Amino acid sequence: MLLIPKFDSANQAYYYDRLYKHIKTEILSGRIGEGTRLPSIRKLADFLSVSTTPVETAYQQLLAEGFLESRPRKGYFVQSLSHAAAVPSTRNESLDITIHPEDLPKGKSAYTYDFHISRNDFTHFPMRIWRKLLNHILLSEQNDLLYYGDAQGERGLRSELANYLHQFRGIDCSPEQIIIGSEQHWLISLVCMMLKGKISKIGAENPGYRLIPETFKVHGFEVEPIPVRREGVCAEDLYNSGVRLVSITPSHQFPRGITLSVSKRLQLLDWAKKTNGYIIEDDYDGEFCYRNKPIPALQGLDPEANVIYLGGFSQALTPDICIHYLVLPKSLLSNYQQLRSRLYFEQSSSRIYQRTLQLFIQQGHYERHIRKMRGLYQKKHDALVQSIERHMGKHAEVVGRNAGFYILLRVYSPKSEGALLQLAEEAEVGIASASFTWLTPRRECDQPGEFLIGFAGIDLERIDDGIKLLADVWGFT
Amino acid sequence: MLLIPKFDSANQAYYYDRLYKHIKTEILSGRIGEGTRLPSIRKLADFLSVSTTPVETAYQQLLAEGFLESRPRKGYFVQSLSHAAAVPSTRNESLDITIHPEDLPKGKSAYTYDFHISRNDFTHFPMRIWRKLLNHILLSEQNDLLYYGDAQGERGLRSELANYLHQFRGIDCSPEQIIIGSEQHWLISLVCMMLKGKISKIGAENPGYRLIPETFKVHGFEVEPIPVRREGVCAEDLYNSGVRLVSITPSHQFPRGITLSVSKRLQLLDWAKKTNGYIIEDDYDGEFCYRNKPIPALQGLDPEANVIYLGGFSQALTPDICIHYLVLPKSLLSNYQQLRSRLYFEQSSSRIYQRTLQLFIQQGHYERHIRKMRGLYQKKHDALVQSIERHMGKHAEVVGRNAGFYILLRVYSPKSEGALLQLAEEAEVGIASASFTWLTPRRECDQPGEFLIGFAGIDLERIDDGIKLLADVWGFT
Repeated sequence: MLLIPKFDSANQAYYYDRLYKHIKTEILSGRIGEGTRLPSIRKLADFLSVSTTPVETAYQQLLAEGFLESRPRKGYFVQSLSHAAAVPSTRNESLDITIHPEDLPKGKSAYTYDFHISRNDFTHFPMRIWRKLLNHILLSEQNDLLYYGDAQGERGLRSELANYLHQFRGIDCSPEQIIIGSEQHWLISLVCMMLKGKISKIGAENPGYRLIPETFKVHGFEVEPIPVRREGVCAEDLYNSGVRLVSITPSHQFPRGITLSVSKRLQLLDWAKKTNGYIIEDDYDGEFCYRNKPIPALQGLDPEANVIYLGGFSQALTPDICIHYLVLPKSLLSNYQQLRSRLYFEQSSSRIYQRTLQLFIQQGHYERHIRKMRGLYQKKHDALVQSIERHMGKHAEVVGRNAGFYILLRVYSPKSEGALLQLAEEAEVGIASASFTWLTPRRECDQPGEFLIGFAGIDLERIDDGIKLLADVWGFT
Repeated sequence: MLLIPKFDSANQAYYYDRLYKHIKTEILSGRIGEGTRLPSIRKLADFLSVSTTPVETAYQQLLAEGFLESRPRKGYFVQSLSHAAAVPSTRNESLDITIHPEDLPKGKSAYTYDFHISRNDFTHFPMRIWRKLLNHILLSEQNDLLYYGDAQGERGLRSELANYLHQFRGIDCSPEQIIIGSEQHWLISLVCMMLKGKISKIGAENPGYRLIPETFKVHGFEVEPIPVRREGVCAEDLYNSGVRLVSITPSHQFPRGITLSVSKRLQLLDWAKKTNGYIIEDDYDGEFCYRNKPIPALQGLDPEANVIYLGGFSQALTPDICIHYLVLPKSLLSNYQQLRSRLYFEQSSSRIYQRTLQLFIQQGHYERHIRKMRGLYQKKHDALVQSIERHMGKHAEVVGRNAGFYILLRVYSPKSEGALLQLAEEAEVGIASASFTWLTPRRECDQPGEFLIGFAGIDLERIDDGIKLLADVWGFT
């Protein structure tokens, strides 16, 4: 908390005085707060490359004036200002260093009943196993892993991922096609940069997950909303729109939960082939199917097609790992390499985490964790749907059923969506309006209110009470 | 080096046979050369996610047939083919999964004398302390930290960073101005997105660090190379160029090592004020000063100016942490918030790492580490400069002296830069031509060859031998 004075140290006689004045100003302005421990004389002198004399003199002066207190064997601490000698008031600084004690822990919720759509139940993260593997890596491989690694991601993890995706998602790719990165928007930005100049107009599901189209927009692409019809996105709409890329969520359309049928998938692949277009397959919850086995990814239907698969571990494991990935079609590999050699970016995910995750998958822990969470989330899903039917009856309809982490609830009420949300807020029930999933503005009166009700994060035994409360405040009971 | 076919590992009985045949084909085709050391049985088995049995069986067969040789405690090496049993030529498989046994550990170098400019000495990373703090966090705060955190970065770390930067870099900022992210290019991309529409033409030091201008280019900005004159970048050139942002490295210009004087800094700040322009201050090695105290950052000279400060921990601590940051000027804070609410990006650095780093700085470990490394790197710097003077005399000149991790060497020789580089390569001395730092192409004959000689990573006691060898092969002795 001590600002290095920006003055010449040549003349140590004056140095003490400026150092003293400087620290005093910092204390008076509050930038060095009460109770702060100053560096030891030796340490500060070392740091400033001066002898200890001027530092000691400055400290003695501050002690004498009551700015500091010396605690034996502990060091010098800033006194409460009420103890300080009266000093002429210094300039009235408006301090802009605001330190909040700590934000509310994100794991804790502000709601009594929190139906958040992505605050999944991360308390089941197998921390004991993860810690064991992590410590093993930290102890045995640090001398390698502390250096820069492969900018594309660790080869070991990419190989393991290729195997896993083949086995569990039906994906057919080589480790060369996998690009690891710490954040979705960053990976999509890479795609934007690879496609810039090749295509100019993209389509996005409407309603849908806005991160992807918005990222394309900031990269200068034109975005065309593609209607999500009863069966999902239709190839015909793509032909008509003239887009050359479409971003879709075939496992469970976000937010409507529709699983894209194989015939629709084949039509989209055919569209991509005929128009030399691209499909981004966002498989955010593909492993979380409750009524059937997970549907293999669209990518595997035609590994030669221009499908860009997007996956990650934030929702299934924990956001803390910060590992997401793209599976690129082979046709884009050289574009990726060019981009890399032009932009000099480095890998954005920790190598140690990558290596730990590799072992975690290799040893079967990931698969086991997914299985466990699927069972748990299915129970919650079913409880939620039952509660809604029980407490809301004909007043509400579950539209997006069987998606991994949430359902879409359509509410029939004379009250507006905003009014319903307000009532939920007041009752401390956390739900989200689905309006943010629309790429085009809609008039509120157009149709019944739609809400996203997440079930993965809330405790199983709280679901029924929460839905009952919601039904109460909405006047359905 | 070793290509592993994508065959199913379920049936281990056949697996050995296919693995054996595969390696044999690779050896016969010459794709695995004589003398190559194969991965250990355990390593390859781990890597392929199979038990050690099929791998061992395959290796035994190859040993028996004379393809491999086992050297005690050293491993399995490919024999010269004249020793091998005659085999019928097998089909030429086109395999698309290429598995390298292990990449060369990045900490280890392919060179006998590696003067790499960013492969610093990360073996001094205080792993014991880091592990202790990390495990403390993992055990005590997991239930919170496994959830999504603040997209801007953990407030605790940002506060700690604001203090640290104030104390050690003379920066005046609040935690609100700090944006944490896992990778430089991603943070610069954020800046590009914030400034798009406001400005269209930026300037970059020439020669300089290309990541920043290249990132602006892919975001559609026009980039004007700004000459690095004897004293660095001049405000006059900025006025003449009509740019509205300039990216600079004032502590030590990359790659010429020039420290920008206070008067030049003030002129640049004045330029920014007069033109409503921006300065990106890339402080990649600001803490690593050897002949004087670290020069406070330009940002601190005028905290109200439009300075975007860029810092991080990759070079000073280890790239593995994946924590970089921007200090934004207050004028851009609302732009950042808008961008965030539009793009929905999440934080790209691990919260657990952020929290660990916070404690690491708070408890003084970072400061101590910097001091230790500064002492160590200074010794290496001095040894390098002395060796160059001793062995190269008038044939070479150290241009960029006192930068943190490298020097720029100008070489006077009738040989071309390319020929000199080739000679260095052949002698297994790793150095880099400085040509990649030029934004504009230059003819090789224009001037003497210039090389970047990193000193931070190489062992102190190897420096003199490496430089002597270089002087020898370059014909200076």
